[in-house]
Amino acid sequence: MKRIALGLQYVGTGWNGYQKQPCRHTIQDSLEIALEQFARTRLATTCAGRTDAGVHALEQVIHFDTELDRPMASWVRGTNTFLPDSIAVRWASEVAPELDGQEFHARYSARSRTYHYVLYNHAQPSALLAGRAGWVFRPLDAARMAEAARHLIGLHDFSSFRAASCQARTPVKDMQEITIERRGDVIVFTVRASAFLHHMVRNLVGALVYVGLGRHEPDWMKEVLAARDRDAAAPTFMPDGLYFAKIDYDPRWGLPQEAVPLPWM
Amino acid sequence: MKRIALGLQYVGTGWNGYQKQPCRHTIQDSLEIALEQFARTRLATTCAGRTDAGVHALEQVIHFDTELDRPMASWVRGTNTFLPDSIAVRWASEVAPELDGQEFHARYSARSRTYHYVLYNHAQPSALLAGRAGWVFRPLDAARMAEAARHLIGLHDFSSFRAASCQARTPVKDMQEITIERRGDVIVFTVRASAFLHHMVRNLVGALVYVGLGRHEPDWMKEVLAARDRDAAAPTFMPDGLYFAKIDYDPRWGLPQEAVPLPWM
Repeated sequence: MKRIALGLQYVGTGWNGYQKQPCRHTIQDSLEIALEQFARTRLATTCAGRTDAGVHALEQVIHFDTELDRPMASWVRGTNTFLPDSIAVRWASEVAPELDGQEFHARYSARSRTYHYVLYNHAQPSALLAGRAGWVFRPLDAARMAEAARHLIGLHDFSSFRAASCQARTPVKDMQEITIERRGDVIVFTVRASAFLHHMVRNLVGALVYVGLGRHEPDWMKEVLAARDRDAAAPTFMPDGLYFAKIDYDPRWGLPQEAVPLPWM
Repeated sequence: MKRIALGLQYVGTGWNGYQKQPCRHTIQDSLEIALEQFARTRLATTCAGRTDAGVHALEQVIHFDTELDRPMASWVRGTNTFLPDSIAVRWASEVAPELDGQEFHARYSARSRTYHYVLYNHAQPSALLAGRAGWVFRPLDAARMAEAARHLIGLHDFSSFRAASCQARTPVKDMQEITIERRGDVIVFTVRASAFLHHMVRNLVGALVYVGLGRHEPDWMKEVLAARDRDAAAPTFMPDGLYFAKIDYDPRWGLPQEAVPLPWM
């Protein structure tokens, strides 16, 4: 028995999120159907992190166990043959059987996760970025948002940015990086943390946009964090601009390390 | 009576092209339905250039005549209210009544047209660029393609790149610019000419890709041009990567001059 990891890219528009559902119209259902068609046997998959409806992935990582002996390139090409255009396997890699006495696990072996949020900031909506970016029609001050974001770096209780539906054990997460970069009318937020609460990135972006619009001073972010209360923050931002970008694993697992860029970066 | 020009952006995926059809599922049908809902009267529109099914526009220009007296910003916002997400009006501008004794006409007043062709060059398909870019899985040499493209600059008979269905008066066009730029796994072709024959950009890209793959030397492009025969060139490339980018008009018409960038440029 070997454990194989796959790098998976998808556009979440029109799908009912990542996780399997009885209705079947999810990324995981499509992936498992494609894997079964290629492998001619059912394979149960585990992902690094579920994504909500409308959320995209530059590189989701999943793993499964199999006795089958096929070249890794065949897992990629064969599975892609049976996937719809909006989902693609990027790579397949057999992982080392164990490291420091532990098996590889797409979710539990992850050391950190990176998301991008892409925001289109223009008076008119962009047809090209519809479903691919959030939209704010009033001018945003990226420097103010970056100033506010600095208050979020480090180990914090992120309860103010946690959805009621969140099942995480603890609201304390280690925020390692937030960068906010403007390119013309597009603003890209990059957020890296040990782990995320449900809706955390979309809630952070909502609060940062309030600061970027001038509704609050950058220091307001400190108050929001300290309140540990969802009502203290701003509304959840739309899923359209959210991209699960990168999962960091110990390089000894031998998985591809290079990040997949946004096509417009 | 005044003549109003609109800048229109759209993603062509899933639409039956620009031009009105009895089946109605076209960009022009959607635009005219939205204009009628906003203006409460039928308005007949004329575009700068029709685009085929699956082809996108960063900025198509259309015009119509009306007695209605509404602020230009209302034409933009009001029409967008009734358009699907994949189509958006960017600007509205009342054009000068005449210039050198001629009326403005979205098609006949155009001095040149610019298209982009976006190509994804990677061993695996991109889910993010599905429908938004052509795909070539073998490595392409952009420098070779640029060398081949130089033979196309200037006034030429482009019959070798003309679809059988083309209704243009003459196959002689003035090719003003071809640039080929690689950014990571994305190659962007930018092509500017006085006017284009039907399928001309997709046929040019098909021939350039043959050179980029090493199937032909860059000088082969001279032979293809000289043959004036569609069979001498390469197959038509898929519509997915084609963007109608910019139409150049005399600045005295007062239309917005700034080009809309591709989101990933």
